[in-house]
Amino acid sequence: MSGDPELVADLTTPALAVDLGRFDRNVATMAEARPGPALRPHVKAFKSTALAARLADAGHRSFCSATVRELEGMAGAGLDHDLLLANEVVDYTRLGRLVERGAAITVAVDSTETVVAAAAGGVERVLIDVDVGLPRCGCQVDDAGRLADLARSKGLEVRGVMGYEGHLMMVLNPEEKRAKVEKSMRRLLAAHEAVGGDIVSAGGTGTYAVNTWANEIQAGSYCLMDTQYVTLGYPFEIALSVVATVISVNTRGWFVIDAGLKALGMDHGNPTSTRGEVLFCSDEHTTIRPDDGDIPAVGDRIQLLPAHVDPTVAKHRQFWVLAAEQPAGPEAPVAERRIVDRWDIDLRHW
Amino acid sequence: MSGDPELVADLTTPALAVDLGRFDRNVATMAEARPGPALRPHVKAFKSTALAARLADAGHRSFCSATVRELEGMAGAGLDHDLLLANEVVDYTRLGRLVERGAAITVAVDSTETVVAAAAGGVERVLIDVDVGLPRCGCQVDDAGRLADLARSKGLEVRGVMGYEGHLMMVLNPEEKRAKVEKSMRRLLAAHEAVGGDIVSAGGTGTYAVNTWANEIQAGSYCLMDTQYVTLGYPFEIALSVVATVISVNTRGWFVIDAGLKALGMDHGNPTSTRGEVLFCSDEHTTIRPDDGDIPAVGDRIQLLPAHVDPTVAKHRQFWVLAAEQPAGPEAPVAERRIVDRWDIDLRHW
Repeated sequence: MSGDPELVADLTTPALAVDLGRFDRNVATMAEARPGPALRPHVKAFKSTALAARLADAGHRSFCSATVRELEGMAGAGLDHDLLLANEVVDYTRLGRLVERGAAITVAVDSTETVVAAAAGGVERVLIDVDVGLPRCGCQVDDAGRLADLARSKGLEVRGVMGYEGHLMMVLNPEEKRAKVEKSMRRLLAAHEAVGGDIVSAGGTGTYAVNTWANEIQAGSYCLMDTQYVTLGYPFEIALSVVATVISVNTRGWFVIDAGLKALGMDHGNPTSTRGEVLFCSDEHTTIRPDDGDIPAVGDRIQLLPAHVDPTVAKHRQFWVLAAEQPAGPEAPVAERRIVDRWDIDLRHW
Repeated sequence: MSGDPELVADLTTPALAVDLGRFDRNVATMAEARPGPALRPHVKAFKSTALAARLADAGHRSFCSATVRELEGMAGAGLDHDLLLANEVVDYTRLGRLVERGAAITVAVDSTETVVAAAAGGVERVLIDVDVGLPRCGCQVDDAGRLADLARSKGLEVRGVMGYEGHLMMVLNPEEKRAKVEKSMRRLLAAHEAVGGDIVSAGGTGTYAVNTWANEIQAGSYCLMDTQYVTLGYPFEIALSVVATVISVNTRGWFVIDAGLKALGMDHGNPTSTRGEVLFCSDEHTTIRPDDGDIPAVGDRIQLLPAHVDPTVAKHRQFWVLAAEQPAGPEAPVAERRIVDRWDIDLRHW
């Protein structure tokens, strides 16, 4: 490869690709459903300031993140109008530095220790993180008021509450989902009663449409999507794929590509191939049983659709952005698709 | 954190740690069993030239790799005495450049296309990769001679054969394992008959002791190990861990640390905690049910043992090396352990 790749055929594989048409439609669909600050995009899903800037252009200027590194990168890119670390931390060395430099940062707290650390660390604003049913971070509802009082006594502004109903993302039945999310959010609202503040932050791509109790939704996966989230039947399309090269075709009934589990998030299972059934992934290979009559040739480019967007993205250095409108039409081989942009995945690591 | 971390307590978490005592014992054990060129360490397991240099010091100067990037890094570090790309490639642009610069490179081929690509790409030496039972790369035994002839007709030196009995790594019963590996290696030896050359390369950490048919073993995981490989009962210790910080302790019976599935290879399942039962991993969290009477405090450092070494390593930028001899003794809290070195994981990506 010399110079910038113009076509998918020019890419070093495995490579992460975004279909710009699908991405733009996903962003527009969410911006209509949850306009402006009603969505606080979660950067953990895409870890890219270039991508985040597009969401800001679509009206969402408040972001949340899961790591200090993500906040540092967002602040460095000037996307620090209202940044929430939707996670607990104990070491505030780096966050304090960001606040000193003028970034508007709010941090989740759920214990005396994390409140004390936030106050000592130079952060000025917190949300009380509440256990709404997912066995993870968050204080109990009846402890939320105490933590808010403690925070205020230490000079911190308490902006409200957050809670993540992550255990309900993949509930398929709409009535069951609505009932369970309501029950979960009633806990958050009860905590909010005791805490005060303007923010009730919750949700994700799996509950963005049903969670009407939160006043901002922390969704990120919707703009790229994966084969698990797409089973929910929401109006978002899979815009993400891993482009690979066929390196071996075996007469015993399979072929092998050069993208394996080091290029894919595997915690939701195998990726899906557009050219056959995925049998298994190795470190740098995926073995695929071809569809009848569709045996590829060594050197062909094919696409894998990841099962989980977030950890897949975290394994790559950049998204290669494929043109929304393909002169050759959607049926053209992926190798001929035109690359129009590169978005660095600059918020990786910790 | 300012300056170099001296103790585990100084690390930004999650962080990858290597116990130098265990690592050195693993390396010595293998060097005794498979001295010098009888082992061709597979760099895909650790992706670090600093670590590879220690294996070279232990007598293993021939290496193999799974990606072009790994070869480039090894050549850049001067570890290019005898480098094998134990994988098929079609694009030889970058490999050709390495050969021009003097790196001694051999590449696996298993088809007319890959032989033609190797010859056109400037590589001078190949191994014929043979399907020995794992459904992945490798030609059929009865095609190996034809490919060797084709390669020689194009001016390539054919150094021998390779095959990977990856499907047999985790067979537990020693007699069953030996019988199955022998059957697999008979295929490789039959191909070798037709191919010629000096090299019969095969195996991995799971078959290093039983595979007496290959004259070099491609093992890499043995030096760091993981919770899956350790179930084989071989004389290698787990030297790798992910260090994390406790960020939340829930009165409902769990605690949460700041290392999740983005810091761990998940394809072999959940990691193991030294402080309780791992319930599940999220992107940046692991939820753990504490052992009776051992509830940690927010801010404590704990260790996770990964289930799969290779993809775990590929998610991190460096190994933090913990001193072999701990003045505080092995029972000291991990936070107090001394850091003596940093090995960059410089062979990542593609």
